[in-house]
Amino acid sequence: MPDFAAPVERLIDELKHLPGIGQKTAQRLAFHLLRAAPEDALALADAIRDAKEKIRACSICSNITDSDPCLYCVGPTRSKKTICVVEEAHNIMAIEKTRTYSGMYHVLGGSLSPLSGRGPEQLHIKSLIERLKGGAVEEIIIATNPTAEGEATAHYLGEMALRLGIKASRIAHGVPVGGELEYVDGGTLAHALAGRTAVS
Amino acid sequence: MPDFAAPVERLIDELKHLPGIGQKTAQRLAFHLLRAAPEDALALADAIRDAKEKIRACSICSNITDSDPCLYCVGPTRSKKTICVVEEAHNIMAIEKTRTYSGMYHVLGGSLSPLSGRGPEQLHIKSLIERLKGGAVEEIIIATNPTAEGEATAHYLGEMALRLGIKASRIAHGVPVGGELEYVDGGTLAHALAGRTAVS
Repeated sequence: MPDFAAPVERLIDELKHLPGIGQKTAQRLAFHLLRAAPEDALALADAIRDAKEKIRACSICSNITDSDPCLYCVGPTRSKKTICVVEEAHNIMAIEKTRTYSGMYHVLGGSLSPLSGRGPEQLHIKSLIERLKGGAVEEIIIATNPTAEGEATAHYLGEMALRLGIKASRIAHGVPVGGELEYVDGGTLAHALAGRTAVS
Repeated sequence: MPDFAAPVERLIDELKHLPGIGQKTAQRLAFHLLRAAPEDALALADAIRDAKEKIRACSICSNITDSDPCLYCVGPTRSKKTICVVEEAHNIMAIEKTRTYSGMYHVLGGSLSPLSGRGPEQLHIKSLIERLKGGAVEEIIIATNPTAEGEATAHYLGEMALRLGIKASRIAHGVPVGGELEYVDGGTLAHALAGRTAVS
């Protein structure tokens, strides 16, 4: 006899495919959905279907969007002189929340990782080169993650921009604002020292 | 400008309704679904819809099932002499996994909790009384959770069974098998001492 009725088993199985969701959590979520009002559970099913059907990649910057080109690419108040390069579409939101940047974006779709078989061809780098060759862009701000792979990708993009004669910058690494020196790891502190700025 | 395109916002919002899923996790799950192959994401949407449409409560024991009565209630090899009473349908699986019980089940749908407004009327206790009056049942095994509310429910069910002239038992509390005494909490150890059994 299976543990649960077939539709429940199937639901648990599908939930287990989500990242960070194991057997126990999948069971808990499945039973929550079964207990929930039908309209609430079906709203989730519809939202998944709707998002998959309506969301596509922006043909310019590869950001996820329901209108092509995306809102950032056609925003009338946004400067076309800088492109901020990020690994994933959700990184854009983190930068937008700072309210200090109003240029273009470009989503790579990951970082260079030879071990995982991700070379420049697997990322949206060709379309970035096309944009840089367009003539309007003066600077790319490389905002890949501060991981080994993100740093390697940043280095690769920096070299590429150099060849195309376009200024490239990397977001600063250093001590987080509000943090205490005591709890900052050595690598970050070394970066903070090397990247020190004059105070007067 | 909203953080994400409307369908993505909606998906994140729906995922946030799941227990234990906050804004960040909902975002991570949503982006995972957006990146996934369409058939994989839609399989989850379909599984939710399917489970909500096909799963109902068993008319006898209130277990969740896609066939009524459920597999346990109609199982030809299962004894009708004992009913194991549990709080939630998924508790049945935990007991089934022991492979030591082959009687009937009854799902209460929660525990008595006057503070949360759950009295006997809110639980499936009336249908349990009907079953006990049927004449076939000799014993109920009360397997509610070892919490204050579960204990109160167990006490209530014990009194009820007494009035109906049916034997009631409570699953044993004690030291978990494979555990070390040092790490067992005092309440459990007190139960283990009080419930000690003769070794010869």
